[in-house]
Amino acid sequence: MLKKQINIAIVGLGTVGKAVLRLIMAQQSNILNRSGIDITIKHLCVRTSPQNMDASIQPLLRDSYEEVLKDPNLDCIVELVGGIDTAFHIIKTAIEQGKHVVTANKALLALRGEELFSLARKNNVCIGFEASCAGGIPIVRSLIDGLLANSIRGIFAILNGTCNYILTQMATQRSSYKHALLRAQKDGVAESDPSLDTSGMDAAHKIAILSSLAFGLKVDFSSIFIKGLENIELVDIQNGEKLGYVLKLVSAAYEVDTGITLWVRPVFLTQTHALSWVHDTFNAISVYGDINGHTLYYGRGAGGNPTASAVVSDIISIAIGTLSAFFQHTRNWQDLNTRIDQIHVRKTAHRFYLRLSVFDTPGVLTRITYILSKQDISIASVLQKEKSEHSFTRSTNIIITTHHTKEESLVQAIKEIDQEDFIQRKTISLAILDEFPEFPPH
Amino acid sequence: MLKKQINIAIVGLGTVGKAVLRLIMAQQSNILNRSGIDITIKHLCVRTSPQNMDASIQPLLRDSYEEVLKDPNLDCIVELVGGIDTAFHIIKTAIEQGKHVVTANKALLALRGEELFSLARKNNVCIGFEASCAGGIPIVRSLIDGLLANSIRGIFAILNGTCNYILTQMATQRSSYKHALLRAQKDGVAESDPSLDTSGMDAAHKIAILSSLAFGLKVDFSSIFIKGLENIELVDIQNGEKLGYVLKLVSAAYEVDTGITLWVRPVFLTQTHALSWVHDTFNAISVYGDINGHTLYYGRGAGGNPTASAVVSDIISIAIGTLSAFFQHTRNWQDLNTRIDQIHVRKTAHRFYLRLSVFDTPGVLTRITYILSKQDISIASVLQKEKSEHSFTRSTNIIITTHHTKEESLVQAIKEIDQEDFIQRKTISLAILDEFPEFPPH
Repeated sequence: MLKKQINIAIVGLGTVGKAVLRLIMAQQSNILNRSGIDITIKHLCVRTSPQNMDASIQPLLRDSYEEVLKDPNLDCIVELVGGIDTAFHIIKTAIEQGKHVVTANKALLALRGEELFSLARKNNVCIGFEASCAGGIPIVRSLIDGLLANSIRGIFAILNGTCNYILTQMATQRSSYKHALLRAQKDGVAESDPSLDTSGMDAAHKIAILSSLAFGLKVDFSSIFIKGLENIELVDIQNGEKLGYVLKLVSAAYEVDTGITLWVRPVFLTQTHALSWVHDTFNAISVYGDINGHTLYYGRGAGGNPTASAVVSDIISIAIGTLSAFFQHTRNWQDLNTRIDQIHVRKTAHRFYLRLSVFDTPGVLTRITYILSKQDISIASVLQKEKSEHSFTRSTNIIITTHHTKEESLVQAIKEIDQEDFIQRKTISLAILDEFPEFPPH
Repeated sequence: MLKKQINIAIVGLGTVGKAVLRLIMAQQSNILNRSGIDITIKHLCVRTSPQNMDASIQPLLRDSYEEVLKDPNLDCIVELVGGIDTAFHIIKTAIEQGKHVVTANKALLALRGEELFSLARKNNVCIGFEASCAGGIPIVRSLIDGLLANSIRGIFAILNGTCNYILTQMATQRSSYKHALLRAQKDGVAESDPSLDTSGMDAAHKIAILSSLAFGLKVDFSSIFIKGLENIELVDIQNGEKLGYVLKLVSAAYEVDTGITLWVRPVFLTQTHALSWVHDTFNAISVYGDINGHTLYYGRGAGGNPTASAVVSDIISIAIGTLSAFFQHTRNWQDLNTRIDQIHVRKTAHRFYLRLSVFDTPGVLTRITYILSKQDISIASVLQKEKSEHSFTRSTNIIITTHHTKEESLVQAIKEIDQEDFIQRKTISLAILDEFPEFPPH
């Protein structure tokens, strides 16, 4: 077996940085034995000296990454500071100094990946970013290598463990969104400011990166339709269950008539849908290729160790030389297929679940179904429960599911319905996602 | 993007060979656009000229692979003839002529992979074998690349689509094994002689290959415990369902106390088990790494197109140069970790399902439970249904599930039970598989 050494610097020692450090220190000889690669940590760049650290790492601590990047023996930097501006500057400087880069920074790659990838190619170095999407699941490699014989037709994924945990808690513990979020924070699964996760933004960063790999698409990030969990109510999860659905925050990028549509939103999945069994903090990515059909990749999408697993596999692949070869050969931001349009979700069709809160007066259902039919929306099921005789209010919920309908028609219908006097509060609508057809009909 | 040409010869034009040919002819420019690799088919080696073939391929047809392998411009051969002896000779000759090899031949690699891999390394060429395990699922790449930072602790997989289809048919259509097999044959999912699949042998070839990658284990193929589907009865699938279990043919390789145990057998899975939702001809592989925990890979494990997808991704990776680099760097047959022992399944513990067919005489249950307790087997549940008053027979079924017990104890107990006069026919036993612990307890 060939043996090779790679000298690395780790920049940033948060949860992931510490896990990478621990993994390399503990597994150095195992990794050497397994791959012939000897990973040597030469520098650890931290703003403030970490507490309770092993004495052996003291000599490796540096407070300036600029100095570190001048080391001619350094092969690769591992950027784990997060954020946009500083991280961009670190990676740019490293590339200009001829160093390879490994990063877990999805926000940076989603927003400014194009510049960095192009710069890296010019400087003949590569960027490893397996850790940026779905942590411990080797999905980036599957797209840039294992599925190369395929044109990808669609990706449907659960890419945010925090949101999936919250939804699992709501469904299994019958808790409100607020309580489930508190529980997630208590369990270390959600940040004290959880908005990057719960807004769907984090998942959007990841689907943007995966789409650029899968479709050779230059993603216009601002035109991704993003809807988070913040307004999800337990009652809709429960109503969905009765109808045979599971609510998940799904990220999707798939072919429609004239382009690709990208969105992140809570959707109902049928209970046989391949993503419906993915619970807690797990992630999963369904990929539909034109040749191999449906494949799915499941695992832990976040957390120190799973992310470190991805970071270290990138370091090893850089040392072996394979990542550079893929980087030079496979399309992503470099080869923008400008013929592909991003189609707004409103122009696409889904089935829908509607919950209408109405004052129960005669003719309400007639009026609602009339407005829907004006927009050519066909109703699949209606459920209006009898009110208890002792009920003090005249309000009730009507649950409607529709057949496939273009979302802009539905939005228009809801707008009209919500102006009716009998409407008590804004109508809730959630898309129902069927399993993507594995192969298009002939 | 770098551009490169690779000249290939396809040897064998069965289902997979034809699919590879079709894929390359149809997607040549897409693949070039995606990866910079121009795949050129220089030779098609067939024993008898295929019927209804495109006129354009006539000039490529050859009847002797020996002549083809002398072509100095040939880079890579794709061996798709199957079987052992001829395939071995083709691959050996190709390697000696300095050609890279891509093969889907699991039987050959499971039985004689070690010789071929060692020969390939000596001759500085590589063998691509993504297609040998689980067709369209890039599991070989995940093990040799994406999971490199991990020590693998266990693999649990559904690796035979034919068996999975038969079991899905039995469970959903309430059909006997015989009828489900006929249906599978009618649907083109089972061969006219299905024994390679239904005996578990095909799955054993695949788990042997995956184990050698995951554990660096030199697999003693003859010591893999292999049990097929042939004796499965519908009644046990139905009994299992009532207890909350799904029956699947599972291939496993995992750490036990002092080594690795390898087996292929029908087992009951709890309905929350990650493999329990895998139906029809789909395959799935659960991998448990010490760092990234549980990952799962799902997709089509057989069929022309999915297998061709794997073959072509290997051809592209050989042209890019990545497969050779991995081949030189990552351990498998080359780096035999002789310290790992293969532990016979009889020495390992499972929960078990037993169906005892007894003549219903007084004291039967006492005698059975006494024999089980002598072997230290603890009973988890017992179900003996009341017979109909109109029943003409005195025979009845007793369903017992056990707590974890070493299999050799159970085998001994059943042997003793089956000698009792009240036993009407041999006792059926099936292991019940719990989800593998994602991380070992601290």
